[in-house]
Amino acid sequence: MSELLPPRGYKKEDTEKRKKWLEKKTGFHLNETGPDNPEDFKGIIENHVGYMHLPLAIAGPLLIDGTYAKGEFYIPFCTLEGTLTMSMTRGLFLTHLSGGIKTNHIKQELSRSPIFIFKDIDKCIPFIEWVNQNFEILKREAESTTRYGKLLRIDKYPSQNSVILDFVYDTAEASGQNMVTIATHKACRYIIDNYKCESGFRYYIESNFNGDKNPAYKSLLLGRSHFVVASTLIEGRLLKRILRVTAKEYVDGWIQCTRGSTEAGIFGMNMHVANALTAIYLATGQDAASVVENAGGIISYEVRNSNDLFATITMPSITVGTVGGGTRLKQARKNLEMLGCTGKDSSKKLAEIVCACALALELSLGGAIVSDEFAFSHSKYGRK
Amino acid sequence: MSELLPPRGYKKEDTEKRKKWLEKKTGFHLNETGPDNPEDFKGIIENHVGYMHLPLAIAGPLLIDGTYAKGEFYIPFCTLEGTLTMSMTRGLFLTHLSGGIKTNHIKQELSRSPIFIFKDIDKCIPFIEWVNQNFEILKREAESTTRYGKLLRIDKYPSQNSVILDFVYDTAEASGQNMVTIATHKACRYIIDNYKCESGFRYYIESNFNGDKNPAYKSLLLGRSHFVVASTLIEGRLLKRILRVTAKEYVDGWIQCTRGSTEAGIFGMNMHVANALTAIYLATGQDAASVVENAGGIISYEVRNSNDLFATITMPSITVGTVGGGTRLKQARKNLEMLGCTGKDSSKKLAEIVCACALALELSLGGAIVSDEFAFSHSKYGRK
Amino acid sequence: MSELLPPRGYKKEDTEKRKKWLEKKTGFHLNETGPDNPEDFKGIIENHVGYMHLPLAIAGPLLIDGTYAKGEFYIPFCTLEGTLTMSMTRGLFLTHLSGGIKTNHIKQELSRSPIFIFKDIDKCIPFIEWVNQNFEILKREAESTTRYGKLLRIDKYPSQNSVILDFVYDTAEASGQNMVTIATHKACRYIIDNYKCESGFRYYIESNFNGDKNPAYKSLLLGRSHFVVASTLIEGRLLKRILRVTAKEYVDGWIQCTRGSTEAGIFGMNMHVANALTAIYLATGQDAASVVENAGGIISYEVRNSNDLFATITMPSITVGTVGGGTRLKQARKNLEMLGCTGKDSSKKLAEIVCACALALELSLGGAIVSDEFAFSHSKYGRK
Amino acid sequence: MSELLPPRGYKKEDTEKRKKWLEKKTGFHLNETGPDNPEDFKGIIENHVGYMHLPLAIAGPLLIDGTYAKGEFYIPFCTLEGTLTMSMTRGLFLTHLSGGIKTNHIKQELSRSPIFIFKDIDKCIPFIEWVNQNFEILKREAESTTRYGKLLRIDKYPSQNSVILDFVYDTAEASGQNMVTIATHKACRYIIDNYKCESGFRYYIESNFNGDKNPAYKSLLLGRSHFVVASTLIEGRLLKRILRVTAKEYVDGWIQCTRGSTEAGIFGMNMHVANALTAIYLATGQDAASVVENAGGIISYEVRNSNDLFATITMPSITVGTVGGGTRLKQARKNLEMLGCTGKDSSKKLAEIVCACALALELSLGGAIVSDEFAFSHSKYGRK
Repeated sequence: MSELLPPRGYKKEDTEKRKKWLEKKTGFHLNETGPDNPEDFKGIIENHVGYMHLPLAIAGPLLIDGTYAKGEFYIPFCTLEGTLTMSMTRGLFLTHLSGGIKTNHIKQELSRSPIFIFKDIDKCIPFIEWVNQNFEILKREAESTTRYGKLLRIDKYPSQNSVILDFVYDTAEASGQNMVTIATHKACRYIIDNYKCESGFRYYIESNFNGDKNPAYKSLLLGRSHFVVASTLIEGRLLKRILRVTAKEYVDGWIQCTRGSTEAGIFGMNMHVANALTAIYLATGQDAASVVENAGGIISYEVRNSNDLFATITMPSITVGTVGGGTRLKQARKNLEMLGCTGKDSSKKLAEIVCACALALELSLGGAIVSDEFAFSHSKYGRK
Repeated sequence: MSELLPPRGYKKEDTEKRKKWLEKKTGFHLNETGPDNPEDFKGIIENHVGYMHLPLAIAGPLLIDGTYAKGEFYIPFCTLEGTLTMSMTRGLFLTHLSGGIKTNHIKQELSRSPIFIFKDIDKCIPFIEWVNQNFEILKREAESTTRYGKLLRIDKYPSQNSVILDFVYDTAEASGQNMVTIATHKACRYIIDNYKCESGFRYYIESNFNGDKNPAYKSLLLGRSHFVVASTLIEGRLLKRILRVTAKEYVDGWIQCTRGSTEAGIFGMNMHVANALTAIYLATGQDAASVVENAGGIISYEVRNSNDLFATITMPSITVGTVGGGTRLKQARKNLEMLGCTGKDSSKKLAEIVCACALALELSLGGAIVSDEFAFSHSKYGRK
Repeated sequence: MSELLPPRGYKKEDTEKRKKWLEKKTGFHLNETGPDNPEDFKGIIENHVGYMHLPLAIAGPLLIDGTYAKGEFYIPFCTLEGTLTMSMTRGLFLTHLSGGIKTNHIKQELSRSPIFIFKDIDKCIPFIEWVNQNFEILKREAESTTRYGKLLRIDKYPSQNSVILDFVYDTAEASGQNMVTIATHKACRYIIDNYKCESGFRYYIESNFNGDKNPAYKSLLLGRSHFVVASTLIEGRLLKRILRVTAKEYVDGWIQCTRGSTEAGIFGMNMHVANALTAIYLATGQDAASVVENAGGIISYEVRNSNDLFATITMPSITVGTVGGGTRLKQARKNLEMLGCTGKDSSKKLAEIVCACALALELSLGGAIVSDEFAFSHSKYGRK
Repeated sequence: MSELLPPRGYKKEDTEKRKKWLEKKTGFHLNETGPDNPEDFKGIIENHVGYMHLPLAIAGPLLIDGTYAKGEFYIPFCTLEGTLTMSMTRGLFLTHLSGGIKTNHIKQELSRSPIFIFKDIDKCIPFIEWVNQNFEILKREAESTTRYGKLLRIDKYPSQNSVILDFVYDTAEASGQNMVTIATHKACRYIIDNYKCESGFRYYIESNFNGDKNPAYKSLLLGRSHFVVASTLIEGRLLKRILRVTAKEYVDGWIQCTRGSTEAGIFGMNMHVANALTAIYLATGQDAASVVENAGGIISYEVRNSNDLFATITMPSITVGTVGGGTRLKQARKNLEMLGCTGKDSSKKLAEIVCACALALELSLGGAIVSDEFAFSHSKYGRK
């Protein structure tokens, strides 16, 4: 090991060694402590030296009637943007008084997409046929590496002199990025050992095609991880009382926003779904970087019964889980338990809660913009 | 206040009241503590009830030669994705041995984009002319709300029967989202009070056009907040030793990745810039939700001197600051101090560090994919 | 009928009446004649008054080894952009000397995508299940309207409180836009008459989702009409002789072009596939407006055998046919016959020819840019 | 010259030689004639062998009140899609009865975007400064090649180790693609001869960044060639009489269409602007391949006065001209004259007519979809 680099290891004394090393290098001594045993960080983080103590708020309650999530939920919310928790609470309050938010869990599919590159374009179709014929074997190989993951199918995308195989899995309660990597790698090794192409071929475990940590039209169209839809119907008098706008004013305002989004070339169609996702992901041990692939939800609003507002959101990609990774951390677990998100179908339940909260937060922000209270609330809650 | 909602307030006793309320509602008692005084959370978070203690790692050192950032930096890194810190350290080590990473800070501009809607299309051009004539007044109004922000210009985008005014600011050391909202709102109030249009007009403080918390082609093209470019030249022998690939193999692999990105309709051109950004944002008190608008960097690689690898990234949008918001938190401050990111031009310096780290992490991941060690390293570091 | 409007009718005398009417209105007398009988324009154009005599050129010959197209083809080329025919001929000559262009016809699928809108989100899944159960009946209904079209499947895309049904057809030798409209409409009428939903539903025959006459990431990903891949391997000495560049110079230039495309937010990845398509579509009676949905092909280049250039293009959407619509016009027929594009699988053959020509034209343009002869050739051939 | 290729030359006898050559090669004798002298094809097409006689229809009249186009216009319309002319006429009739279409010509700017590539990223800013300092000289060089074109400015886009210079011109009555190529090439030659960079640099005349023949978010945002906005207000009773829908029904239908567009990842926001553009471009000697870069218009609809429909379209890119290229052809000239599109500002006038027609055609199609007459009209007019 180079002197240049921090000492390795997951043990308590390794952490101490690193802290000393860091102090020697920078003069800074990190002395924060946390509830988890550093040795439990294996699989979550390496080179551990300390903690970030992010403030946690509570928003809600959310009233929801979903495929899996049903009842009242108090939302742990970890953000650094002033106003956001108040706005989320306002949105949840509004929808609660109106009878809550409905959600529909459509599907859960996560993929890894290796690419196989041949010498010429005519090698692609025979390869696809071979993959089709050997699906059961490839499935067995892939699934041999995981207790819970199931390979649902392999989608084939020929292009140029290559074929991308999109290995699509049900990852159960895990968000599953690691699971699909390891399983797909095993299946790919089988392909490499068994597929014969006289002119040879190359392969990479990932072609970026699966949209991991990237905004991708593929994910918007076909879904990635949890695909959830949510809706709510807000009575006109509540809209007026709580957001200080009418349904018509609200919809007129939203139309301008779709216009601005289209002109700016914005991916997805929403104002700040990213905020709701980031805050809940941080509070529940999710990988916050996944928000980048998840934030492209599509919202629409319509006036109903002359004065009510029907609001609905489609989120084709919510990459969350309730086991593994950061969900193992003590506080993440506690928050997941508080949400009742443990056990069978809990990742689907969590995805529905996330989707409903995203809708509630959008509703509140939309109201602030239409009533022109947005700047005021940010000068009140967003400054010291 | 409704009984349904959590009690408000920033005082210690308010937090205690909320914790009791939450316990009554859910049976869960939050007992985490943190270094900051809850009263200091004003402007950062409302409804505070506790803390998330995220593990913090150290990566690096980064060797950088930038417009503002120069020398060696030890990177505080807050992630929940196993392997990531090791991979970042590997990338930083590789570039360090090769002479470091160069960065170029191109510009820093953040905008807020209100929309003005008229009755008919022929009202747009006269409005634009009026705005041009009154720029100095509008600038004075906007800047009257902020000590540091400067209104650089107002870009006008006519469309349909409306005009979007893109108020473009230099936000100095702040990330500035609040600053530009409040300043622009003041200027808009002036417009509303003083612009006369016989058929009237409406306005919204935000049209979504500025790309806040959204991936936007506008931001990719024109920039949003810090616009930084980074590059490094890796010697062939180091590439072989540390990534176990040749420069040609590396570039061949990357080409497949651009193919997969284009076919999947991915915004930007990189594999996982989102990961580096999220980890550093969390460690330095940035708003992690901004990663959604920042993750669209464009990477390219080329073989040089027959066996060296030239790697470069353009990141037109890095929305970070070193004052205000979450950067006020004690640990965030400490980490910013450790990075030397305080005082004049420190936000530019931080943006350069972020950009350089994003490049280093990409380099390491690319190596893992080309050498086919990606799945192996994730099964080693990504599992318990 | 209003006096304001041109007189209707497909007969010769109707055309004469319209010409008189136009002369009365504008003072302009149209006296162009053409080979087709105006009565044969039924189904192609209404309100016929005259002709545009576009100049037709010949490019080629193309040497091709495809799934359906094999041998030498002389390409009828109808353009108004000077230099283009020369450039196409140069590209075809280059690839001819190098052994020709290989093509691979991957699939042919055209869809129509009606949307069904329900009162609430929970009505979507039951509807999808009903459609699955009734697929055979819907297929029979759809196919009852066409002799050649086959309904391959119905893809279901739930979103918000609606479901888009993507009716995917094999349209045989027809480009098929009309065929899929009429067939899908018949199936939709069956749904309307037979699907019961107590809270009712609305439907529209088209949701814009199918990408007709629009650039759509869906088409790039899943294909629309013919999906074809082409490639060619150019010997280094021919590249030097004909394009005056080396393979390495060529690839280096192309990389800059992908950079410019990504930064400008360009859909697809090519320089001017649109030109080749438009010229051949016009010469063979295709709907030139379809070029908009077809021009997003993805090109890549690589150096092989140290000095040769491997070029390949994926075109997931080439909306052409050899029967119906404008292909009935006498000259279009003649050109189709000259291309041997009549009878079984002729639309696939034509699509392969189009794809190969697009690649050849790109190759030539790329050469002109890299050798810096682009401006020169346009000042020679693009000016009077 | 290779025996493989068609004989060259613009003279009548050259055409005859080519026709013989083609007959020898393919057995096909082309005997179509046209009104233009083949020698006049120089600058438009090479390797001329014959003609395509496309049927021409008349649609309209359009009633328009624009910045440049004012009054009634009879629209020459060259299409091969049955129903389209009737639909266009219906849309124009509807808007005529409602008082016509307003248009607003916002700007006209066409660019060429060469890229300059340096050895390292730190060479970019000094280069940009040099370009700024030498703008007047570069302008003189560029404009020395054209009688009408004016270089308005050079926008600089640094990225990676390169700078794209976007040379933005006013091309007056020409569509100008050739003009900007030749002018920019001259300016670039000056740069190459005069800019000193010790580590050298490369350049390409085009980086694909200007969006020529490609759908580009840059063009949608900043415009390319003519940027035009159009609107119309349709009385409820006319909407009912002619489209058989109410304003509310119309808007409700359109919302579904924006949903489908967003989900499919469609560039722009319209149903088939491409159709109107292609038909008018073909009839007026424009380059129909430019439709690909022009078809991304953004449409919106709203209910006004409880029952009227306000419709508006923004088309940031309409690449048309009234001099040069195909507009020199006799029939194109005649049609341009019939439209009054000759002389000063005639290209702007033409662009406004195109934009208004695009709106009218969309209005009619939207009506057909909402009233569910779309399939019926296509089975009536779209089949033989």
